[in-house]
Amino acid sequence: MPYSKEIESALKKAKIRVGDRVRIGDIEGLLMPRVMGSPDHVIIKLDNGYNAGVRFSKSTALERSKTHEPKRIEEEFEYEVEEEHAKPSKKELCPPGKPPVALLSAGGTIASKIDYRTGGVTATLDAKDIFASIPELQEQVCFAEAVDVCKVLSEDMDHTHWQALAKAAAKSLRKSDGVIITHGTDTMHYTAAALSFMLPGLGKSVVLTGSQRSTDRGSTDAAMNLLCSAITAKSDLAHVGICMHANSSDDYCMFMRGTKVRKMHSSLRSTFRPINDYPLAFVWPEGRVEVTSPRVERRSNAVPKPDTRFEPKVALLKAFPGSDPSILEYCVKQGFRGIVVEGTGFGHVPTQAKKSWIPSIRAAVESGVVVAVASQAMYGSTNMEVYSNLRVLFRESGAIPCGDMLSETAYVKLGWVLGHTKSAEKAGEMMLTNVAGEFNSRLEEDMFLY
Amino acid sequence: MPYSKEIESALKKAKIRVGDRVRIGDIEGLLMPRVMGSPDHVIIKLDNGYNAGVRFSKSTALERSKTHEPKRIEEEFEYEVEEEHAKPSKKELCPPGKPPVALLSAGGTIASKIDYRTGGVTATLDAKDIFASIPELQEQVCFAEAVDVCKVLSEDMDHTHWQALAKAAAKSLRKSDGVIITHGTDTMHYTAAALSFMLPGLGKSVVLTGSQRSTDRGSTDAAMNLLCSAITAKSDLAHVGICMHANSSDDYCMFMRGTKVRKMHSSLRSTFRPINDYPLAFVWPEGRVEVTSPRVERRSNAVPKPDTRFEPKVALLKAFPGSDPSILEYCVKQGFRGIVVEGTGFGHVPTQAKKSWIPSIRAAVESGVVVAVASQAMYGSTNMEVYSNLRVLFRESGAIPCGDMLSETAYVKLGWVLGHTKSAEKAGEMMLTNVAGEFNSRLEEDMFLY
Repeated sequence: MPYSKEIESALKKAKIRVGDRVRIGDIEGLLMPRVMGSPDHVIIKLDNGYNAGVRFSKSTALERSKTHEPKRIEEEFEYEVEEEHAKPSKKELCPPGKPPVALLSAGGTIASKIDYRTGGVTATLDAKDIFASIPELQEQVCFAEAVDVCKVLSEDMDHTHWQALAKAAAKSLRKSDGVIITHGTDTMHYTAAALSFMLPGLGKSVVLTGSQRSTDRGSTDAAMNLLCSAITAKSDLAHVGICMHANSSDDYCMFMRGTKVRKMHSSLRSTFRPINDYPLAFVWPEGRVEVTSPRVERRSNAVPKPDTRFEPKVALLKAFPGSDPSILEYCVKQGFRGIVVEGTGFGHVPTQAKKSWIPSIRAAVESGVVVAVASQAMYGSTNMEVYSNLRVLFRESGAIPCGDMLSETAYVKLGWVLGHTKSAEKAGEMMLTNVAGEFNSRLEEDMFLY
Repeated sequence: MPYSKEIESALKKAKIRVGDRVRIGDIEGLLMPRVMGSPDHVIIKLDNGYNAGVRFSKSTALERSKTHEPKRIEEEFEYEVEEEHAKPSKKELCPPGKPPVALLSAGGTIASKIDYRTGGVTATLDAKDIFASIPELQEQVCFAEAVDVCKVLSEDMDHTHWQALAKAAAKSLRKSDGVIITHGTDTMHYTAAALSFMLPGLGKSVVLTGSQRSTDRGSTDAAMNLLCSAITAKSDLAHVGICMHANSSDDYCMFMRGTKVRKMHSSLRSTFRPINDYPLAFVWPEGRVEVTSPRVERRSNAVPKPDTRFEPKVALLKAFPGSDPSILEYCVKQGFRGIVVEGTGFGHVPTQAKKSWIPSIRAAVESGVVVAVASQAMYGSTNMEVYSNLRVLFRESGAIPCGDMLSETAYVKLGWVLGHTKSAEKAGEMMLTNVAGEFNSRLEEDMFLY
């Protein structure tokens, strides 16, 4: 759907195309296509991840942006978090039996509504709106505080957002019995893994949740997910995890360990599944929590200390038939300090002639890059004892086997580990240490396709 | 475990390390580490993918290989296939009720035995051995011919092997009612997808199978998988597919569409699962075939014509939080003609500031590279109608949505498509056309985690 003739011709004249960075008055961001609604509003994607519609007239100055470097997002968050936290918490005012729970918002579908009238502009609900919209929540918990930590779409989260969320969660935990974080679902498991590493020794729970259908639709899963998350947050569990629909009916939710969970379906509400793990607990919206895992931590007085150092120069590459190992050399040249390879089966990579990954992996390791190998089969574990090719890979090339750790978790962990040490050897040791339940020494058959 | 002192010092003197390409007399290949057995045999990985143990004495000439280019594997296969096929088939001699079935071997665990005495050397069973070792097979089918097409480990398969297998299968189908291909499990689904595209208009079935436990172990799944595959090959179905254990008990197998199946567990026997599809059929070792999919093709007189043109310069990249889009530019510079991106959820890629993938994807598309986007959620489908970022990606940047097609299938399909046309536009059209059941227009909820 085109913009109005006026806008289209102004864009053409300025040689601006959709996706380009533009400036209209004070507003700067990426030019978006018109999707619906008024043809005389230009849609700009702001650096905070959301869209703005700017009314265009003949006098409107429209130009290609000269700065390609937006304001540091991290600083923005820090500021926002500080400001919100400066307000007094309501914890003291909570009545008996209504445990104080904090809600942090990180954007995503659960915080979005489409405004069909003005078109294309994504309106947003803040944490307080979310809380207020579900009366059942207020029956279960007391509203300690609500903080908008960031407003980005799931695909635009990165380690700076994880750091901001970890710090905000640690602060909120001091004022509450548990924290709920609302988040877009697409990359929620990456964030859950990051927070698992960044919030060690947690004495309470940090519960990530979201929705697969936006909150203004009848079929939304937001209400039950939030309710179950609140029940989890006040329970005696002490984990970073994801709490979402367990199945397609509106029965109950699963609370899943942050390092052992993955979005497995693009649209179903029961999309999040535990991988190589049982769910930590089933949670019913009426209030019942049934612990389902033999590996759970219980509530304690441990004070959370966020440990957010992170090295973003980490790659996640997939090895597959015919794959070109020169991509590893490219990553080394680009200054990447860590590479996670998704191998096949037990962790295999091509070993044949020109296409062999082994020399490239060895060269990377010799130049000080940490290379870890996970399995793209996803369930099960890497295993260096079965095939001789894998002995070469792991023993001789110095690659680190990821065991039953998800490749996505391994990617996040490697960034976190490399944020803590400059020594590749030490990083290798940390990768093999069970920091946040990312390794499960007791894999059971019924964990497959749970 | 080191080699003998003699060998270790000879290696040191020649500056040869494990993984290097070496020559000992007439034998050339990659030096492997010693794993077990005799310390005075040097283990060399040959270009055909298997290991050879070469006895070493003081007089043995051991040198770094000067040629880094092994003999063209493709030609080798062609030759082998031709030679084997030149022998008369036994089809004419089959008794009534014993349909002629051919068996092609492509290596893998099912064809491997570890020789614990000589150590490290991987012995191999050829197709005839496999057939002879299972008496029940001979009760179900008649042995039309057995051909060793290639002997490589699963991780070393590439498009040249797929081409050799497609040609061999097409030939064998003329002499039989169906073909079984034994194959390593790690990359079997890539091969199954390749054969699905390379063998259009099939009137009979090509059944890939393998084993998760080698045939000399008590727990091997090879016998039942082969038996069910033979029953599938003689059935009235006409599909390229994978036939392997349906569950952990030895009850029955599933026959799964070659374009909609994936190895999902590193070690369980029930590792292969249909993705966004029902299995084509359940197959019992006693002979029963129960069709379970509404989308099946039945046996016909169609003569298979292999269509094996393939462009190997295709990449498969994963997009994730913080991922660096410059890797796309690297692929374009390297002359890649196609790129499959594994996005998140409905097919999202990062769109934020410096880390936005959108400009890199558009630049790739503008330079004539075909970019297709699949979902790393795996189940479900890409969807450009829900979020505005995806409209930019798919409508404005020219990326092709892969729908419910697996990223691995999309990778194989894009190579096959680009083998058929130099036009990016035509390639885009072909990518969106349902060639071999890779798109399923009727996704059902119970296909999730089937």
